[in-house]
Amino acid sequence: MKKVAIIMGSDSDLPIVEKGVNVLKEFGVPFEVHVYSAHRTPEEAGVFASSAKQNGFGVIIAAAGMAAHLAGALAARTTLPVIGIPCKSSALDGMDALLSTVQMPTGVPVATVAINGAGNAALLAIQMLALSDEDLAKKLEDKKAQDRVKALEKDAKVFANFN
Amino acid sequence: MKKVAIIMGSDSDLPIVEKGVNVLKEFGVPFEVHVYSAHRTPEEAGVFASSAKQNGFGVIIAAAGMAAHLAGALAARTTLPVIGIPCKSSALDGMDALLSTVQMPTGVPVATVAINGAGNAALLAIQMLALSDEDLAKKLEDKKAQDRVKALEKDAKVFANFN
Amino acid sequence: MKKVAIIMGSDSDLPIVEKGVNVLKEFGVPFEVHVYSAHRTPEEAGVFASSAKQNGFGVIIAAAGMAAHLAGALAARTTLPVIGIPCKSSALDGMDALLSTVQMPTGVPVATVAINGAGNAALLAIQMLALSDEDLAKKLEDKKAQDRVKALEKDAKVFANFN
Amino acid sequence: MKKVAIIMGSDSDLPIVEKGVNVLKEFGVPFEVHVYSAHRTPEEAGVFASSAKQNGFGVIIAAAGMAAHLAGALAARTTLPVIGIPCKSSALDGMDALLSTVQMPTGVPVATVAINGAGNAALLAIQMLALSDEDLAKKLEDKKAQDRVKALEKDAKVFANFN
Amino acid sequence: MKKVAIIMGSDSDLPIVEKGVNVLKEFGVPFEVHVYSAHRTPEEAGVFASSAKQNGFGVIIAAAGMAAHLAGALAARTTLPVIGIPCKSSALDGMDALLSTVQMPTGVPVATVAINGAGNAALLAIQMLALSDEDLAKKLEDKKAQDRVKALEKDAKVFANFN
Amino acid sequence: MKKVAIIMGSDSDLPIVEKGVNVLKEFGVPFEVHVYSAHRTPEEAGVFASSAKQNGFGVIIAAAGMAAHLAGALAARTTLPVIGIPCKSSALDGMDALLSTVQMPTGVPVATVAINGAGNAALLAIQMLALSDEDLAKKLEDKKAQDRVKALEKDAKVFANFN
Amino acid sequence: MKKVAIIMGSDSDLPIVEKGVNVLKEFGVPFEVHVYSAHRTPEEAGVFASSAKQNGFGVIIAAAGMAAHLAGALAARTTLPVIGIPCKSSALDGMDALLSTVQMPTGVPVATVAINGAGNAALLAIQMLALSDEDLAKKLEDKKAQDRVKALEKDAKVFANFN
Amino acid sequence: MKKVAIIMGSDSDLPIVEKGVNVLKEFGVPFEVHVYSAHRTPEEAGVFASSAKQNGFGVIIAAAGMAAHLAGALAARTTLPVIGIPCKSSALDGMDALLSTVQMPTGVPVATVAINGAGNAALLAIQMLALSDEDLAKKLEDKKAQDRVKALEKDAKVFANFN
Repeated sequence: MKKVAIIMGSDSDLPIVEKGVNVLKEFGVPFEVHVYSAHRTPEEAGVFASSAKQNGFGVIIAAAGMAAHLAGALAARTTLPVIGIPCKSSALDGMDALLSTVQMPTGVPVATVAINGAGNAALLAIQMLALSDEDLAKKLEDKKAQDRVKALEKDAKVFANFN
Repeated sequence: MKKVAIIMGSDSDLPIVEKGVNVLKEFGVPFEVHVYSAHRTPEEAGVFASSAKQNGFGVIIAAAGMAAHLAGALAARTTLPVIGIPCKSSALDGMDALLSTVQMPTGVPVATVAINGAGNAALLAIQMLALSDEDLAKKLEDKKAQDRVKALEKDAKVFANFN
Repeated sequence: MKKVAIIMGSDSDLPIVEKGVNVLKEFGVPFEVHVYSAHRTPEEAGVFASSAKQNGFGVIIAAAGMAAHLAGALAARTTLPVIGIPCKSSALDGMDALLSTVQMPTGVPVATVAINGAGNAALLAIQMLALSDEDLAKKLEDKKAQDRVKALEKDAKVFANFN
Repeated sequence: MKKVAIIMGSDSDLPIVEKGVNVLKEFGVPFEVHVYSAHRTPEEAGVFASSAKQNGFGVIIAAAGMAAHLAGALAARTTLPVIGIPCKSSALDGMDALLSTVQMPTGVPVATVAINGAGNAALLAIQMLALSDEDLAKKLEDKKAQDRVKALEKDAKVFANFN
Repeated sequence: MKKVAIIMGSDSDLPIVEKGVNVLKEFGVPFEVHVYSAHRTPEEAGVFASSAKQNGFGVIIAAAGMAAHLAGALAARTTLPVIGIPCKSSALDGMDALLSTVQMPTGVPVATVAINGAGNAALLAIQMLALSDEDLAKKLEDKKAQDRVKALEKDAKVFANFN
Repeated sequence: MKKVAIIMGSDSDLPIVEKGVNVLKEFGVPFEVHVYSAHRTPEEAGVFASSAKQNGFGVIIAAAGMAAHLAGALAARTTLPVIGIPCKSSALDGMDALLSTVQMPTGVPVATVAINGAGNAALLAIQMLALSDEDLAKKLEDKKAQDRVKALEKDAKVFANFN
Repeated sequence: MKKVAIIMGSDSDLPIVEKGVNVLKEFGVPFEVHVYSAHRTPEEAGVFASSAKQNGFGVIIAAAGMAAHLAGALAARTTLPVIGIPCKSSALDGMDALLSTVQMPTGVPVATVAINGAGNAALLAIQMLALSDEDLAKKLEDKKAQDRVKALEKDAKVFANFN
Repeated sequence: MKKVAIIMGSDSDLPIVEKGVNVLKEFGVPFEVHVYSAHRTPEEAGVFASSAKQNGFGVIIAAAGMAAHLAGALAARTTLPVIGIPCKSSALDGMDALLSTVQMPTGVPVATVAINGAGNAALLAIQMLALSDEDLAKKLEDKKAQDRVKALEKDAKVFANFN
């Protein structure tokens, strides 16, 4: 199976990113985690992205805050799908990272998820890989069914509580 | 090859969506275009999404404005990757559609692109399909190389003009 | 008397929603509380909404955060009035939920109240039911009169304190 | 049948409000249209609101722009449901009117619709009146069915065009 | 000397308003403090404003949060200058109150100060009264001179610390 | 009578400022109009403000766009009340000018009016001068009464049209 | 004299950038203009930035819109000062480009000017070069004096017109 | 070597500014720290700026919050480059200070860094001075190389941890 890369711009993004790592582990999807910065280690980030396909990666997830250029910088150097996680920082409530990640120019898309949405970034990566992997697709459907059941159990509990 | 679905919430989104259609045509990717609204035809939208996989679709692109629920409503009913295009309307400059599309809760990702970014939505869909289609992957690399050449030609022209 | 439905997208919205429940209890209006998600349990949410009228409901209140589609998803499937409560989440200070709830397209209104405004959502539902229930209308007028008296008592206290 | 009042803060809001008037006419709901300003004619606005119930009104719709106080000022003086239409002005793209209308304090709700959303304001008023008027409820369901058919026709047309 | 009225929409605004009260005391300007709400006690607020001039008031200061209508509601009923203090609430960081206070339509100005800026509201009121009171004008100049000295002392201290 | 100064940061603000000039003329209030920039002619702006009181001015109105420092820069050098008009420019819809004008630190208030609200700025200045000028106060009350009549005429016209 | 580089992300930014070019010409500062995109020609942009110092450049100006990564991408590869011009695009009024340009992480500053502020970007570059070039410093002072005179002439004209 | 001035609008900005002071110390760049307010001590601020060049300063850094006029006020009185640090205050998350600092009119640039970005402000000042000081330029390159190494060490640590 193709691997998923999770790149974060700074190791301070680790607590956010870990939610995504856990989802990948749960689905048994192979992955690598890196700290590459579009600004502090641009060459390494560039080399990683441009060689990701031949190194066995299928999807790249990039998490960054503030002027979050990481996802776009990686997307500039690969034709693999790149998923961007805008991270909330100490000011502007994540709006800076969201706009910096999602408003990419024509030709270089970044698949942006919610602010701090690392779990969904991992699920989206798995959905992409599952396009050619029926086992993975089956696991996604099972997971979706379980989420539904959990939600219905919560409904039953709340309903019982109030009625 | 799996098909791409392009769903728009209203036929007034057609001028935006057409940029994406053209990209799919250029890459020879099969597609279907629909007008389904999360609010006016929710059943049809739901049926489309929940049967999309077995109907041969690989990726769903959804374009909607204002309280843009369409991409999320489709993603709720499929494990296929769903790409959301926030469309700019007469007020708030597209910010309403952007936040309504990207801020999805855990479990149901929407791969959001820039406001009115239909071209990138199509490219992102192709990147996903190319994960298991080397011909398509090759075309993406060729396109990226051509974009680079075009950009360099513009540089040469501007450089010559000013220097 | 017709019942009020209070639907929340996630049980984490419960602390917000409880303010509304208390208002309904205070007015003796029958109600049911549910956890239905537009994204995790869309079918159940849809079935609830489309059968709400024949099941004796008069008004539906929906509380959700982030890309808050719940109120709109319910409104898409009923002609009962639907009241939306945008819930503040960990980022963007509730603006995402507000815009996702209020900016509905023509044909499918959502009566939106303030961010986290569950008390007002309940009052609004009661105002609607009171259109054909003079007892309830009387209670609303009494409550309004009491609110006024309480506010004037606060004025008297503050005035005495400072003057 | 109870009447609907449509109050606009300024006659410059007339082009927006007319969409709502047309919906009320289409449903055969009796209505009155007024220009009352929370700031230029506050007494008249107040008298209108406080006597609206005994004058046969069931719902009040208020349209205003900028620091849009009108809906709240009317809601302060009645227990009838008040629907607010935030109107877009020359600056800030309607955000000022939206926040001024929707962010009401506990005790005095305003049912807010989308920026310039006069059509939905009228529909919402009709939904409220239909709670005790089965003919009107039937008309709403017919209208919803027609909207669905129109949307499906658009889908058929677009689908045929592209496929 | 004419009195200054400080009206707050809710007694929860008291901690903010007290900064203004202290400034008025410091300048020996007579004042009255009230809790009047544009929504819970609109009549009392209206009566206060429309009789303020004949009751010896020169300036009215109004503090309110969320859809902050208080200053505008008072300004609608008096030709005295009205100063608005937008108060920060639990969501939107004060932006709702700021826009609701400052974006008044032509004919009914509100002199808006910074979010939670009660001290400046009081100073502004004193500046207005000082237009016809040279003693007060002298005190304002003394205060301004003292503020300058205090700022220069801080500069001296910081300069010494770092250099 | 004390004069009103209207200072604009750039002569491109003239079309906005003229609405204020007309109001001052209508009330017979003496005034002077200047183009002083906080950034291009800071000395002249400073000298004007610091000598405004002894030169017979009672109120200063300042209109500026973008990083609108003008009102604050003048307020820093006088104890006269300073009214700020935030002007809308080619980007950000006036939000930059609004925040730059209104968010003044403690000690130096600026009485801020709506974006482009020059008419209200003039009215506010007149309200301040009227505190010690009963003729002017009378004119304000007359004007308010006329505005009310005009609004009621509009109501009569619209009411007749629709009912 | 060291050269100034003006890099734009797309040739559609040319009308904005030209204002900066004209300023550089006016001051006789040598410059080069390029079209390099952080996303379409990242390698060329990187090579340009990393070799800019040895190629005789002193300052780099970068203009880009939307998710404006260009200035940051250049700053990542040089220790020369980099000036960023956020360009307004078809949505969000330039806010996306502003936040993407200015919110840089520690270690990699971008000197950001106003939205579309190419003239100021050029002036800022000249100010930097003038730190070691007294002739240039003299020209800046002359220009500042001329700007002041022009502003005073406008004042004289407006003053004469209105008084 | 020319000195760097760090001016803060209030001594409450000291914790932010200290990060910049530490960077200047680390690079051995001479500096002076002052508390000058555009509003409380405008004359001192103005005198400082207009005499900064002849007093041996090369760059001025200004830190201020809310309606952050300080950087612009200094830039108005010097042709030295002025760097602005927008400081986050108790409301609006720093957006007020950012727009007040960056949106300067043509002719008077302020080189704006991120909200609270004092470290980058200092680095930017050093980059400017390094244009004519090869030792300083060498130190910047060394620092950049060290930052890169630190980032790569973090990558190695995180990579080892997860793989």
